[in-house]
Amino acid sequence: MPTFAIGVDLGGTNLRIAAVDEHGTLLEKTTTGTQVARGRDFVINEMCEAIRAAVTKFPTSTLVGIGIGVPGIIDMGTGMLRESPNLPGWHDYPVRDEIERRLGTKVILENDANSAALGEKWLGAARDYDDMLMLTLGTGVGGGIVFGGRVWHGARGMAGEPGHITVEPDGPPCPCGNRGCLEQLASATAVVRMAREAIARGSSPALAQAAEASDGLSAQSVYQMAVQGDNSAQQIYRRVGWALGIGLAGLINLLNLPIYVIGGGGANAWDAFLPALLEEVRKRSFVYRATAPEDASGPGEKTIITRARLGGDAGLFGAARLPMLAAETAADAGVRWRA
Amino acid sequence: MPTFAIGVDLGGTNLRIAAVDEHGTLLEKTTTGTQVARGRDFVINEMCEAIRAAVTKFPTSTLVGIGIGVPGIIDMGTGMLRESPNLPGWHDYPVRDEIERRLGTKVILENDANSAALGEKWLGAARDYDDMLMLTLGTGVGGGIVFGGRVWHGARGMAGEPGHITVEPDGPPCPCGNRGCLEQLASATAVVRMAREAIARGSSPALAQAAEASDGLSAQSVYQMAVQGDNSAQQIYRRVGWALGIGLAGLINLLNLPIYVIGGGGANAWDAFLPALLEEVRKRSFVYRATAPEDASGPGEKTIITRARLGGDAGLFGAARLPMLAAETAADAGVRWRA
Repeated sequence: MPTFAIGVDLGGTNLRIAAVDEHGTLLEKTTTGTQVARGRDFVINEMCEAIRAAVTKFPTSTLVGIGIGVPGIIDMGTGMLRESPNLPGWHDYPVRDEIERRLGTKVILENDANSAALGEKWLGAARDYDDMLMLTLGTGVGGGIVFGGRVWHGARGMAGEPGHITVEPDGPPCPCGNRGCLEQLASATAVVRMAREAIARGSSPALAQAAEASDGLSAQSVYQMAVQGDNSAQQIYRRVGWALGIGLAGLINLLNLPIYVIGGGGANAWDAFLPALLEEVRKRSFVYRATAPEDASGPGEKTIITRARLGGDAGLFGAARLPMLAAETAADAGVRWRA
Repeated sequence: MPTFAIGVDLGGTNLRIAAVDEHGTLLEKTTTGTQVARGRDFVINEMCEAIRAAVTKFPTSTLVGIGIGVPGIIDMGTGMLRESPNLPGWHDYPVRDEIERRLGTKVILENDANSAALGEKWLGAARDYDDMLMLTLGTGVGGGIVFGGRVWHGARGMAGEPGHITVEPDGPPCPCGNRGCLEQLASATAVVRMAREAIARGSSPALAQAAEASDGLSAQSVYQMAVQGDNSAQQIYRRVGWALGIGLAGLINLLNLPIYVIGGGGANAWDAFLPALLEEVRKRSFVYRATAPEDASGPGEKTIITRARLGGDAGLFGAARLPMLAAETAADAGVRWRA
């Protein structure tokens, strides 16, 4: 009997559910709004209903389990959310156990950026590698590390926060308490802040004009202006590349992974930040220089820095992969989840 | 029959050899000068002789193999040195295979900082943890990462260089090509450079006086002056702590390991740099704040930052551990090294 898993991407705005088979083929995908304001129980009800509806469409396949990507820090031991600014009221509630109870199936919670990294490892840009690191450029800068095909959680499930590596010790303050975090220099929020700073300095009439347009300033509009040749906008993205390059150079010297994947909406500005990124990485990482794609010889000898391939679906695929990996572990250990 | 392994620490100055049993008991230790100037073949001859002499003292034990810690970058696949500034002429020579051939025993080469990390994991400060990172403060800043009880090598054996993470993007130039590496702010070399800078600024008559003494300036003498209350010397060590704190905060946010061990001669100045280190880590790492020893509850929930325990022997013990781990892997895989 063929097997499949359900992957869920529970965002602050959308709830997306996918059925994915063991080979990574997408069988079914649905998207609904997440009515976070109606409270935790309402959202869990909706999610369970949608999962049930998806599962019943595949009566001739075996459901391996359900993986749920959630924005926040998960306690992997208890299956509870430790911190999740976008899901108020979910803290200290047995999310995993409650969903398992309702659906009678194995459920695994995972941080959404970790799920995206796992998705890119399984089916995306890093599919040919066992070890990888992913940076997700969005409102913030998230990330995930995969070692040996599995998410690296660290001692408390809090690993994989490359967005909060210090790039500039006296740089812009970050809500995390640090200054000059990578996130404060390379996220969409940072791009907009730098554009506002350029406007305040009076150094960019074009950005000032864009800020007054009906749709206002966004990382995307700043990028469009960079493409159109605006010097201030280009300079902002050079600074993004500079910061990403400093962060990546350190990661490469520390971990010597074969591949680093950059995803999230911010990766759409790839060509605007890549030259500065590579310049910094080459200058600052002797490990990169020894393994740069243009210099290294054999396969697997190179350090690849590349764009994510699965777009917004990475987290969905990664979430579906979670119960499959757990089933492999259980099979290796000779145990069964349920009698 | 009891088993033992030989650990070798091949430095630019000393060649040290230890026989260590499977429980980590030191059976025998010898130190001789490394006559690097007499060439590679001479050193390998001497080393093989010394190893033979050590092995014959334990006729009733089984030799598991030999681990050799070497300053430089090792290609783990071929057992050759890729780069080793302190061992000229060893590059592109089949070091491992040659020693295996001469001694007829399994030989494993490892970077010396990685060996030290493994030693501290096996018998030292991190003995109760499977995952750890070690920073070695010496002439440079080295390091090693242990995941699951084993050294993390990365794709090309070049992982574990936290000394070359960028702390200050426009900081002092580093021979590695980067600027503001942790090594340029926290090594013995950096301490002496900062002392000379203070003297050049005319801001420290006491340091200037020390520099003219017969034994001159050293990280140790600057530390002694800090202990005696000299303001400039204290400020230098605060800067060391600041840099270490920034680096560690990033590592903690990235990896969420249970323990970070600081060793090497520079760790002797522990009390001079620790306050600034902890101040930065607390400020810059939300993962640390969530897991700080003074706040966290259960065991294994805490992030420990601590001094190494094995001193200069860490690398020797770690080297001896290498063939033991390799034998475990071989046993797991059901293979034998030799018929």
